[in-house]
Amino acid sequence: MKTLALSAKEHLYLRIAQSIERQIDTGVLKIGDKLPSIRMVCREHGVSMSTATQAYFELERKALIESRPQSGYYVRSCPRKRLGVPATSKPVNRHGNEGQPEDIITRIYQDISRKDLTLLSLSVPSDELLPIAKLNKGMVQAMRELPGSGTAYEDIQGNDKLRRDIARWSFTWGGNLEENDIVTTAGSMNAISFCLMALTERGDTVAVESPVYFGILQLAQSLGLKVLELPTNACTGVEIDALKKALERNQVKVCLLISNFNNPLGSRMPDSHKQEVVRLMERHNVPLIEDDIYGDVYFGDSRPLCCKSFDESGIVLWCGSVSKTLAPGYRVGWVAPGKFKEEVIRRKIFHSISATTLTQEVIANFLENGRYENHLRRLRQTLHTSCLQYIRAIAEYFPEGTKVSHPDGGFVLWVELDKKADTIALYEKAVRHKISFAPGRIFTLQQQFNNCMRLSYGVRWSDKLDDTLKLLGKLAHTH
Amino acid sequence: MKTLALSAKEHLYLRIAQSIERQIDTGVLKIGDKLPSIRMVCREHGVSMSTATQAYFELERKALIESRPQSGYYVRSCPRKRLGVPATSKPVNRHGNEGQPEDIITRIYQDISRKDLTLLSLSVPSDELLPIAKLNKGMVQAMRELPGSGTAYEDIQGNDKLRRDIARWSFTWGGNLEENDIVTTAGSMNAISFCLMALTERGDTVAVESPVYFGILQLAQSLGLKVLELPTNACTGVEIDALKKALERNQVKVCLLISNFNNPLGSRMPDSHKQEVVRLMERHNVPLIEDDIYGDVYFGDSRPLCCKSFDESGIVLWCGSVSKTLAPGYRVGWVAPGKFKEEVIRRKIFHSISATTLTQEVIANFLENGRYENHLRRLRQTLHTSCLQYIRAIAEYFPEGTKVSHPDGGFVLWVELDKKADTIALYEKAVRHKISFAPGRIFTLQQQFNNCMRLSYGVRWSDKLDDTLKLLGKLAHTH
Repeated sequence: MKTLALSAKEHLYLRIAQSIERQIDTGVLKIGDKLPSIRMVCREHGVSMSTATQAYFELERKALIESRPQSGYYVRSCPRKRLGVPATSKPVNRHGNEGQPEDIITRIYQDISRKDLTLLSLSVPSDELLPIAKLNKGMVQAMRELPGSGTAYEDIQGNDKLRRDIARWSFTWGGNLEENDIVTTAGSMNAISFCLMALTERGDTVAVESPVYFGILQLAQSLGLKVLELPTNACTGVEIDALKKALERNQVKVCLLISNFNNPLGSRMPDSHKQEVVRLMERHNVPLIEDDIYGDVYFGDSRPLCCKSFDESGIVLWCGSVSKTLAPGYRVGWVAPGKFKEEVIRRKIFHSISATTLTQEVIANFLENGRYENHLRRLRQTLHTSCLQYIRAIAEYFPEGTKVSHPDGGFVLWVELDKKADTIALYEKAVRHKISFAPGRIFTLQQQFNNCMRLSYGVRWSDKLDDTLKLLGKLAHTH
Repeated sequence: MKTLALSAKEHLYLRIAQSIERQIDTGVLKIGDKLPSIRMVCREHGVSMSTATQAYFELERKALIESRPQSGYYVRSCPRKRLGVPATSKPVNRHGNEGQPEDIITRIYQDISRKDLTLLSLSVPSDELLPIAKLNKGMVQAMRELPGSGTAYEDIQGNDKLRRDIARWSFTWGGNLEENDIVTTAGSMNAISFCLMALTERGDTVAVESPVYFGILQLAQSLGLKVLELPTNACTGVEIDALKKALERNQVKVCLLISNFNNPLGSRMPDSHKQEVVRLMERHNVPLIEDDIYGDVYFGDSRPLCCKSFDESGIVLWCGSVSKTLAPGYRVGWVAPGKFKEEVIRRKIFHSISATTLTQEVIANFLENGRYENHLRRLRQTLHTSCLQYIRAIAEYFPEGTKVSHPDGGFVLWVELDKKADTIALYEKAVRHKISFAPGRIFTLQQQFNNCMRLSYGVRWSDKLDDTLKLLGKLAHTH
């Protein structure tokens, strides 16, 4: 590299960029690999800072590398093959709701305890990505510090330290919460359950994105709610016009959106959409339940905002948890229910009295002293690399024409195969080969997405995973 | 004592009994004091085993002392004053449900975190009665042994070791459960919530005892259920005839009973009643939710049976927890839902995904190795003594004509003052004197029990408590 001949100054940066591109192309540099720092490039190539920066800018422009905040530049994708993104969904909402294949959902839940499966079906981080030793230390501290070592019921609204931390943390997404605005729950689904029970009655309609996390559909149905599935874009989330029409038709009692890194679509609503949605909700006086469990796991420069960031009238019930970032089994979540706070607290008391005292305290301490931010920084890097590797492997191994979402955060990819593909049949075949994923059909009540699947990348990338995706791709081919 | 003169052999046992009665009467022996063993009485008085036994039998007959299993004889009550037991309740169930004074309930919940109050309002054991050091050790063990130190979701139906323990433990009450019959939950109210949601729809009627734990009324109302309050006896629980009539009138969708040491009445259904109730439920095909959280805290010789003990068709949903015996803040409960298992599991998944992994494991280990039985033995002794002291203090300090339940287990006394008394006003006055209790009015939707109150004795007896009850009695007088 040091002997690289320099012909004309204006092409210098391009030469550097091309040599790196070649290394990526031939596999010398792999996805997720860190590139030399700008300073190092200057020294190695004997060029100025501006030339080195320009070279990296060129590679970034081609989406071959990317800068990660406070960390440097990383290889992003392989140039040989680019995959299309699934088109905006077109739910039909005909003849009421048609139900989900419950048996498949049950089997996916049961897969959790099967040690022989590679689980691409769960949108949670694997053990190895969690700060387990630190949480254990926190538990010992909590037993020492809590009155009665945490055996007693905690305060009805939840651990006050935890509520203070969440309020403080809300500054990262432009929130302006106070301790007293927050109610803790046993996880985010538990928070959503309290919100839906507080806001709806049997027969009411809840509007959601399409596709949507199957747990939300199950909960809504068990509460006797009708579900209105809205067209949703894999990049920008719910289609504002469709939502607007539904609200104008007076069809909707409550709206439930996963605004950031939607599960399963990976979409993130642009800030302008978030603002518009809140404005619409206010105009029609329809509450918005915002599920923001993935917001902290962003791959870009900063924490995306929430709809709640634009909420001035208290119409947004903002839900979150640490189940995607610290410890699903701790059952620690929360909601800032806006003007519906008293009603939500009542549901919490009636159905559960209180949440688990000890685990709430552990998480409170973890959030308090900066460990959370450090942990998140590592987690995001790992997931980001894993996400890019998955996309690369899908491009390489899956049938021609496969489309895939390109989320800039979260845990899951939405994969769309050929129209004729049947991912439930593929699931059956995959499980026989010890791979579990989530077929598209379970993410709707409308007989759609039969050719889609959700793949979770909540694990550290490895050659074994490459083999798994290769095998899955092969099964999709012969399908 | 050794010089006690003996005149005639047939009166020998009476003399011994009288001398002990005198000691109780003059306060030399206090409630809860342990008496010398039969063997010791023989040696001290130079009498035969049969004479000593006869003496204690005489005292037992007069309810002055009582035998406690594997422990010996204890002073039970003072003979000078005996209180009547409240009469069987006569709920009116007119014009639908009239609601509860929600503000009082909210204030009672808020009292929990007030350190300056003496809380006679909570039916939970105080810290000092819990095996906190052992639970903490168990937590360290659980973190060491669980995969991922308990950060991961647990099995959907719940910790299998815990379910096995509960199944094994069911032999103590004539249950015949298997691990697979049980679903764990975040406490007993959480179990009841899943049962009610699985079995009812808005507008259905749930039949309950009257008075009944206010949390059950709140939950039922928030689910849009009508509540049918049934006449209930302070000793034998729900009136079978009334239940029968309600079932025959086809009024009831589901029945919810606290069969053992009912909260707030303290009643325990005789086995024959339990059997009859199950038979009625089967005949009318109405499910019974049995809340058995107090069953392990019996003062008699053995664990009382449950309705579930007589259930052969799976119509009883038996709920329990360790919130009354080990750790309320752990949120560990369970239900054996009989033939409604799948429906209950679905509610658990939809509303909460799973319970807290770590605390379930700690409780599982605690139940496994006999520590639970040892702990319960001590807990029962302490609560029994405390219960008797409360009754003695109420007899001594409360107005003439006061009635009180005489539970043989559980955590609470039901006190009935003069008809004109207003216990909500008394509550206001008591709180100003730093005493909190639960006014009777919150245990019904029917504008009753205004002269009643529930007092919890879930604390170790002390002179300070005697002062508290003295003060409360004084306030009730001047009322």
